Amino acid sequence: MTIVQSVRWRGDREGDPEPGDGSASPLAIIILDQRELPERCVERELRSLDDVCDAIRTLAVRGAPAIGIAGAMGLVVATQPNRDDRPRYLARLRTNADAIRSTRPTAVNLPWALDRMLGVAERTAGDATAIRARLHDEATAILDEDRDMCRAIGAHALPLIPQNARIATHCNTGALATGGIGTALAPIYMAAERGMHPTVFADETRPLLQGSRLTAWELGQANIPVTILADSAAASLMAAGSIDLVIVGADRIAANGDVANKVGTYSLAIAARHHRVPFYVAAPSSTVDMATATGKDIRIEQRDGDELRFSHGRATAPRTVDVYNPAFDVTPAALISAIITDRGIHQPPYDFSNAPRSRD
Amino acid sequence: MTIVQSVRWRGDREGDPEPGDGSASPLAIIILDQRELPERCVERELRSLDDVCDAIRTLAVRGAPAIGIAGAMGLVVATQPNRDDRPRYLARLRTNADAIRSTRPTAVNLPWALDRMLGVAERTAGDATAIRARLHDEATAILDEDRDMCRAIGAHALPLIPQNARIATHCNTGALATGGIGTALAPIYMAAERGMHPTVFADETRPLLQGSRLTAWELGQANIPVTILADSAAASLMAAGSIDLVIVGADRIAANGDVANKVGTYSLAIAARHHRVPFYVAAPSSTVDMATATGKDIRIEQRDGDELRFSHGRATAPRTVDVYNPAFDVTPAALISAIITDRGIHQPPYDFSNAPRSRD
Repeated sequence: MTIVQSVRWRGDREGDPEPGDGSASPLAIIILDQRELPERCVERELRSLDDVCDAIRTLAVRGAPAIGIAGAMGLVVATQPNRDDRPRYLARLRTNADAIRSTRPTAVNLPWALDRMLGVAERTAGDATAIRARLHDEATAILDEDRDMCRAIGAHALPLIPQNARIATHCNTGALATGGIGTALAPIYMAAERGMHPTVFADETRPLLQGSRLTAWELGQANIPVTILADSAAASLMAAGSIDLVIVGADRIAANGDVANKVGTYSLAIAARHHRVPFYVAAPSSTVDMATATGKDIRIEQRDGDELRFSHGRATAPRTVDVYNPAFDVTPAALISAIITDRGIHQPPYDFSNAPRSRD
Repeated sequence: MTIVQSVRWRGDREGDPEPGDGSASPLAIIILDQRELPERCVERELRSLDDVCDAIRTLAVRGAPAIGIAGAMGLVVATQPNRDDRPRYLARLRTNADAIRSTRPTAVNLPWALDRMLGVAERTAGDATAIRARLHDEATAILDEDRDMCRAIGAHALPLIPQNARIATHCNTGALATGGIGTALAPIYMAAERGMHPTVFADETRPLLQGSRLTAWELGQANIPVTILADSAAASLMAAGSIDLVIVGADRIAANGDVANKVGTYSLAIAARHHRVPFYVAAPSSTVDMATATGKDIRIEQRDGDELRFSHGRATAPRTVDVYNPAFDVTPAALISAIITDRGIHQPPYDFSNAPRSRD
């Protein structure tokens, strides 16, 4: 089974290209350019600050965990020691981190990863070369931890997946969005690895089509059967008895278990409840925000209406029509059968301050 | 208030173009070319059998009632008397009707309108010219009856619409789909005419975007405030208390009140029930099919998966991915607050064999 990798160090895989410019630094990142998907599978090498910022800004790399990883690895690539003394190198790291941080102001993983890298740099003794070596290790650790986190989510969620399960999902929460096998897709990959034959129904996920463009593509690469559908068609599949469970990711989880996720998640949760189909959320434990009491406290980003007014430059609506285009919606805890994190399965009533209760 | 007209005789409106080819027949149809919407508002003149067939086949005119009207009027335009004797003219009418009928095999209004026209032709005494004059009147009657039917639906549904109502709808069920002010949009136009200030939230309606392309456009022409949204975003609007009622059309209504309509209607109905928002269906009484006992007996057309795989020629999914693309879904009667036809308001439990019960 081929599981794609969204971000890696150049050299981590056999056949990776050698640097073509005779640069003193062998360090480079290779990303899978998601702007080209699903039409072309193009890997792109990032070797400079501009490369890194451009890739994050233009969504060549996307998904909160993958952005954090690319930011951390990008900081290393972008900041060569040159002949800087220690203070000058630390100053350049801070400047470059600010540039990377500003590419996607709303992604929480990006500032988290960059702050972690800067903290490590300041605590590392020695000269610029020593600091950079340590940062290389730290960025690798961030990548590895994310990979482990994906596997942990998958392992905890796997008991919820029956043999031959027909699974509905929304948006992209897979290998393309993380450093590993994804969050909501993690148990699906692991079920497939174990010969349990999961089948996926992927909402296309309007307006940006992460489901049809990305989820369908990466599951196809792994030879996991996948069918795409209009978001609004999922309910009729449930009515026909064709869906065994729903599993989605989360952008933020409130302390009471309310979940903010890609718009359309709430509609899917209501339909699942109506048809008595289990509805699961799978996300890193870091997504739980204990400072947010309930979903009502989550501010929902309104995105540009042109995402609905145009498609590939062609008008799909009157040019000045009003648009309601929230990036996310909030699914109340009452509609969620269980929340699976890398710490385990959390069941209602949700209490994330304690260890998850074991499943009966 | 400007309500657009999808099909009319040339000459029915001041400023209509004169026939440019010096044709013996002054008869022509003017349609609003819906292929050009919302980018351009283009009227097109249909003067021949090819013009008529092409317009229906390529969806320049669409919506079951509008197609029936265009077919009936098109038969008159396409079949000039020339010097035919009566039998020869009747034969040509049948041949042309068959050609028009074959353009859209699934639309029920088209064969209905053509059969009505052929029946009238056979029962009309006199020569080809006399028959054609009678057919001209009959096609006009079909247009006028549809216009009256729209107004009747609107008048019956109007008491369900409060002042300043915020109304969600799906697909296009307006002037563009009918000869008049539409079905589900009829009470909205009438509420606006009466200064009741309705506001419309139009689902974009994937995959063909009839909501954002057509509903938003025609309501904009009438200066009725309209906001478009991804189909999957409607539930979050309901959760925010921003929707007072939902009103949609119907493609077929079973004897028990189950309704087949554009895919996504069912999902919207479930969300409306979850939020205790009234969910209404408005349709011509001819949509009620007493031969269909329940929604389970309605065969749902599966459409080409390329509607989800491509957008304006660009891949939006892997090129060979499986697609679930039903044209319609079935909303069970239990989720429908009332069904409004030109005969009145039908309330549950639905019994279309009797006159509708008066509203309490």
